Amino acid sequence: MRGVKPAARPLTRVAKRREKTRRALLDVALGLFYEKGIYWTKIEDITERADIGKGTFYQYFDTKEQLLAELLREGLELLLARMKAAVSSANGAGLVPVVVESRLAFFLDYPAYLLLFHQVRGLLQLQTAVSKELRDIYNIHLDQLAQLLKPALQGRGKGGTSARDLAVALAAFTSGLLTYHLVLGSVDEVKHRRAAIADQIEQGLSALI
Amino acid sequence: MRGVKPAARPLTRVAKRREKTRRALLDVALGLFYEKGIYWTKIEDITERADIGKGTFYQYFDTKEQLLAELLREGLELLLARMKAAVSSANGAGLVPVVVESRLAFFLDYPAYLLLFHQVRGLLQLQTAVSKELRDIYNIHLDQLAQLLKPALQGRGKGGTSARDLAVALAAFTSGLLTYHLVLGSVDEVKHRRAAIADQIEQGLSALI
Repeated sequence: MRGVKPAARPLTRVAKRREKTRRALLDVALGLFYEKGIYWTKIEDITERADIGKGTFYQYFDTKEQLLAELLREGLELLLARMKAAVSSANGAGLVPVVVESRLAFFLDYPAYLLLFHQVRGLLQLQTAVSKELRDIYNIHLDQLAQLLKPALQGRGKGGTSARDLAVALAAFTSGLLTYHLVLGSVDEVKHRRAAIADQIEQGLSALI
Repeated sequence: MRGVKPAARPLTRVAKRREKTRRALLDVALGLFYEKGIYWTKIEDITERADIGKGTFYQYFDTKEQLLAELLREGLELLLARMKAAVSSANGAGLVPVVVESRLAFFLDYPAYLLLFHQVRGLLQLQTAVSKELRDIYNIHLDQLAQLLKPALQGRGKGGTSARDLAVALAAFTSGLLTYHLVLGSVDEVKHRRAAIADQIEQGLSALI
């Protein structure tokens, strides 16, 4: 029977428990990163709140940065999945508003991810050595976003805007505006101003298309 | 002679020395914040590099956050002064491009301030208590920026954009785009793409006016 792919077997009890622990570490870390930030959160803080021995952490992640990379990847995948699901029912001219709306909705549902992404972008600007991995994860996301936005451009937009330029502008306008509004008000206040924020992003992008 | 304001006297030697030490602490801190970030930089790191006893730090600042607030205020004042000087030779339609260009130039000249402001906005999103002071400094800057941009709007812009909305959008688009470009490339690469970035910000804002 060589060459025949075996049917996916259900997870063993051990594998299930391992997956549960890994999930707990990621979830607890995301919560702590939102409370205290990625810089001030120590591995001990994560294992203590997850009620796991510190040694156990290293069976799952080599470093805090590796866990951070995993959360970044998961978060960006979740965000992309939301946008993809939203555009499946959109066409041509409706594409950009739908993408903007779903991106905004994601960040208002998950402010912890908004802050995580913001802090990772700060980390990547530091002059101390940071692994290339985080930068690569971001690059992949922006390429995927460019793919998603491509149908909104007939070839190139105004001033030669490429799909990748449009993706960067969408990401930058959305997180920039949300971050400024959150600095000046609470998540609830921002939710109230949501339609106005979506409008500004859409109008800003429409000038590039 | 009561009621008559005395002529400004030259600083005494002690006052001069104090001002020099204070300046050294601020400059060294800005450099360290750019290298290691505001979270990982300890007061000891600052005093050690400034070659000052740790106790002396507290003769100038009560906490690291107070020093941070001072740098934020100075940086935003410097940024505003640059924009004000630039608009003094601009009128009506030329106002927004001139403000965009001078804001962009400031951040490319001082990437340490771009990162400092970025990290402060991250700090203000954390769920741990942060002093109201940092938020207030930001608010004042955005009000001043709104004052500066007011002549670009005849009353209200598209969709009811106020001068304050335009100020927030300018700040958000500029730092958002610069931050994304810096995450994906070096300061030198961003300087090369400067004209394209200025274009995107201007076009994005023109859609709101």
